[in-house]
Amino acid sequence: MKVNGSMDKFYYYAFPMQAVLVTCNDEEGKTNVITIAWHTPISKDPPLYGISLAPKRYSHELIQKTKEFVVNFVPYELVDKVHFCGTHTGRNMNKINETKLTLIPAQKVKVPLIKECYANLECKLNKTLPLGDHTMFVGEVVNILVDENAFKNDLLNNDKIQPTYYIGGNSYTTIDRMRKNF
Amino acid sequence: MKVNGSMDKFYYYAFPMQAVLVTCNDEEGKTNVITIAWHTPISKDPPLYGISLAPKRYSHELIQKTKEFVVNFVPYELVDKVHFCGTHTGRNMNKINETKLTLIPAQKVKVPLIKECYANLECKLNKTLPLGDHTMFVGEVVNILVDENAFKNDLLNNDKIQPTYYIGGNSYTTIDRMRKNF
Repeated sequence: MKVNGSMDKFYYYAFPMQAVLVTCNDEEGKTNVITIAWHTPISKDPPLYGISLAPKRYSHELIQKTKEFVVNFVPYELVDKVHFCGTHTGRNMNKINETKLTLIPAQKVKVPLIKECYANLECKLNKTLPLGDHTMFVGEVVNILVDENAFKNDLLNNDKIQPTYYIGGNSYTTIDRMRKNF
Repeated sequence: MKVNGSMDKFYYYAFPMQAVLVTCNDEEGKTNVITIAWHTPISKDPPLYGISLAPKRYSHELIQKTKEFVVNFVPYELVDKVHFCGTHTGRNMNKINETKLTLIPAQKVKVPLIKECYANLECKLNKTLPLGDHTMFVGEVVNILVDENAFKNDLLNNDKIQPTYYIGGNSYTTIDRMRKNF
């Protein structure tokens, strides 16, 4: 039987969505990291990727200023760090130090990427779209780094790599190891 | 070891993403259905949901004309129908008949929803954003219907409901039945 869902939690019905770690820099080059669940590819050519942030977020301020970010796709083993980065602000804390994540240089942006993540999309800010109470930052993907064995013919090797999915609230899960090929 | 990813397949690295069935109507009220993997919540208040379509898609034309759509979240048992709706056009075929999906009336839009789907977001077109080679249709969520037992306190009961995830190519998977609560 169908019942009405909660309008103020409408986005919960779209979960589980993959929780990614987005890195960005302040003007002195110090890196912050934030967990984001609202994100999607947007265009193939040019390659555009959208991430949605509330204006109160510290990373919102940083991306507006330094106009770059990296989308890091996280193996489920790091779910504790994903939750930490989604529930703490970098305004008065170095989240990279706290989580002991390893930063390594990107190839085409100044923002570093997270080594422990199995795929990293380097983005330059292409458009800033205020939409409702959030801002969609549209990044042009200028370079991609991936772990050597994470993908086979560009398809996630989900028998080996288990990404991190946010169910809502304080709950997470991952993907099943099976797959169906048509 | 990190290696460079394929720029023309950059969106594959964001997969698996949930594959949803989007319903929309033509001007005579005939319903079409399309599979979409690029979609995300965008704003809480107002409740906005974005779906990204290539302009060549038949549903692109329909949503531009009739300015409504429903986002239907699909249990994994229907993965064959999801693949079918993602690989056939409704220009010269009735995909609803072909897939034997059941349409039932929505409450606040003319576009019907798919009964077999466990959550349905009724959307009115709020903004049309051409971004690169796709269009992001931003819908305002005006009503929500969900299966009675699919959610507990608005969180997906993923022990029971297994959504459908697109890995890329012709491959799909679902979510794990475990969860971690912080």
